[in-house]
Amino acid sequence: MGLTEERLIKNLQTMGKRVLENINQGENPELEILTRALNNVYYDNSTGLIKLGDKSQKRYYFNVNQAKKFMQTLLIADRIKWLMEQGKPALSIRQLFYTLKHNIPGSKENTFDNQDESDPIIEDIEVMIDALREQLKLIATPKGVLSGPIMVKDKTGDLLDYTKMGSAGGAVPPIVEDDFFHIKECSADFILVVEKFAVWNLLNQQKYWKDANCLLLTGKGQPARAERRLVNRLSTELKLPVYVFADMDPWGYYIYSVYKQGSINLAFFSEKSGAPQAKYIGFMTKDVKTFDIPKSSHIKLENVDLKRIEELKNYDWFKTKEWQDELKSLKDFGNKIEQDSLVAKSIEFTAKEYLPYKIENKEFLN
Amino acid sequence: MGLTEERLIKNLQTMGKRVLENINQGENPELEILTRALNNVYYDNSTGLIKLGDKSQKRYYFNVNQAKKFMQTLLIADRIKWLMEQGKPALSIRQLFYTLKHNIPGSKENTFDNQDESDPIIEDIEVMIDALREQLKLIATPKGVLSGPIMVKDKTGDLLDYTKMGSAGGAVPPIVEDDFFHIKECSADFILVVEKFAVWNLLNQQKYWKDANCLLLTGKGQPARAERRLVNRLSTELKLPVYVFADMDPWGYYIYSVYKQGSINLAFFSEKSGAPQAKYIGFMTKDVKTFDIPKSSHIKLENVDLKRIEELKNYDWFKTKEWQDELKSLKDFGNKIEQDSLVAKSIEFTAKEYLPYKIENKEFLN
Repeated sequence: MGLTEERLIKNLQTMGKRVLENINQGENPELEILTRALNNVYYDNSTGLIKLGDKSQKRYYFNVNQAKKFMQTLLIADRIKWLMEQGKPALSIRQLFYTLKHNIPGSKENTFDNQDESDPIIEDIEVMIDALREQLKLIATPKGVLSGPIMVKDKTGDLLDYTKMGSAGGAVPPIVEDDFFHIKECSADFILVVEKFAVWNLLNQQKYWKDANCLLLTGKGQPARAERRLVNRLSTELKLPVYVFADMDPWGYYIYSVYKQGSINLAFFSEKSGAPQAKYIGFMTKDVKTFDIPKSSHIKLENVDLKRIEELKNYDWFKTKEWQDELKSLKDFGNKIEQDSLVAKSIEFTAKEYLPYKIENKEFLN
Repeated sequence: MGLTEERLIKNLQTMGKRVLENINQGENPELEILTRALNNVYYDNSTGLIKLGDKSQKRYYFNVNQAKKFMQTLLIADRIKWLMEQGKPALSIRQLFYTLKHNIPGSKENTFDNQDESDPIIEDIEVMIDALREQLKLIATPKGVLSGPIMVKDKTGDLLDYTKMGSAGGAVPPIVEDDFFHIKECSADFILVVEKFAVWNLLNQQKYWKDANCLLLTGKGQPARAERRLVNRLSTELKLPVYVFADMDPWGYYIYSVYKQGSINLAFFSEKSGAPQAKYIGFMTKDVKTFDIPKSSHIKLENVDLKRIEELKNYDWFKTKEWQDELKSLKDFGNKIEQDSLVAKSIEFTAKEYLPYKIENKEFLN
């Protein structure tokens, strides 16, 4: 589950102590930071995750181009440490920016002018002390909802039972780390991750999670950090199989890969939040024939879709034979199928026929 | 609370019967539909709501330009009636489209080609039978979360206690009509609607809803239909005062007005979902001085903000003296203040000082 709060505070302290040592020894104070640029991001075949490489760079105090950034890095690290020590509520990264933005006495300079300056430094610090920002009590807005047989003890002390969350399902909280979202019990056999809310909602109304004994989650399209991290925890800690159900188009396939391998832009987050065991349950080209999907549900692929298919083909994590075949097959078919469209077969089709068939016959892409 | 399901089915039936009468009497079958164009939308000063006027137009079967649309209108009305009679789960408007899109036998035509065709007709039917789409079991994706002393009996049978929803708060469900979301008990003194999730989250972590004995809701920026309708129900049925807390900029002011008076684009929805008693609690220009907001939290108004201020000035529902003064005062001040920025005063400032002061001194804009 990663580092304790105490350990994280210690790591931040160590960071400061090293700078102090530099000063005491009359050296130019420096910080070493793993490079987060694309040239230091790679797909690690052995773990099945998008990861950050080991290239690093140094940030110096006595360097005209780096002095301000150096000062900002220490300011942010210090503030994060203070917030944690004081047991303050978690903040958004914009709120953190506002707590730090102020005039530097005796100058016309501000500590920060724009959030563009503080956000990348927060990521630097995450990497430096090997902790996600959520572990440092910094949040992003979550989007998803969850239902199914899991009991969670929330940081507030509330006991959350996701079989009793009504029509809405349970909202995914901004922080799903163990100290905020402690999993007490889970009897589910797997987790079904659904791309779209409308499809999640249809399944939830039919209590699909009960029939299938699963957890039912949606990130409402492209998931936020909290849903990705939650799927990671359910997959790694509870060893639950993860099935991702999305549109049969390059955008749906990509959402699956974000849950599974992560994303290039958030490589450091990805290596801690991917679910490399996740499988793609559909919709897939093979299903069109198996389930006799009516022509009226076919939507012609546009140029932008075709271009995206080519891009996917070239991602290392889509280079398995199954996926290369699927991408070719989608292109040849020339049409996409949205998961919403399965209601054209019948309102119950997704819950009663499609998903049970796919799971029983283990028809997944990997 | 509007019409019962039985009544709505009857209304749909009546609609069909009238067409049948036309046919039996050898007349050109017709449907009369209130015009939803901007020229039939107005602000009703007496109720404080944006409303649809009484201009209407007829849609005929024997009219080359209208025949397809006439057929589509009956198809949709018939399908909605069938879904309700069968007790089927609620669908999204895209799913409804897919259940109806098919080839017309013996022709090369489809019933519908694009959702652009079905969506406006759903709105026509809402207006024709005087029911929101949610009452017809058609959903839009909700966004918001809620916490505070309210107990709800959900359609699923689950009893939802919004004081026990943990860090996430309770997700707002897609349908908040009484048969889905039955309010059993509510001891709150008012409802605080917060523009941004990050600020809601800060207040929720501090259990502001407990200290202030209120409901705490966010629609995460521009609210979806469900949050607007929920605020309407809490305001009209429970007579709870509604305070909207947003950014001090024309975009924040406008979000307040969407909760209160509604929006031009959804005039029919607005007259059923506004909360004309809602008050604007802040952030407002007067507060800058009262609370000595540091210069570093001021963000210069851009041209796009200034242009939007002028637009707001011209909306009928911003024509009160208070709002005209506030808009002028914002322009003169030349800066906006985000609600997030109040953490610069202190992490506890919003919950412990700002909101209590504003409420105690009834410093609202109306």
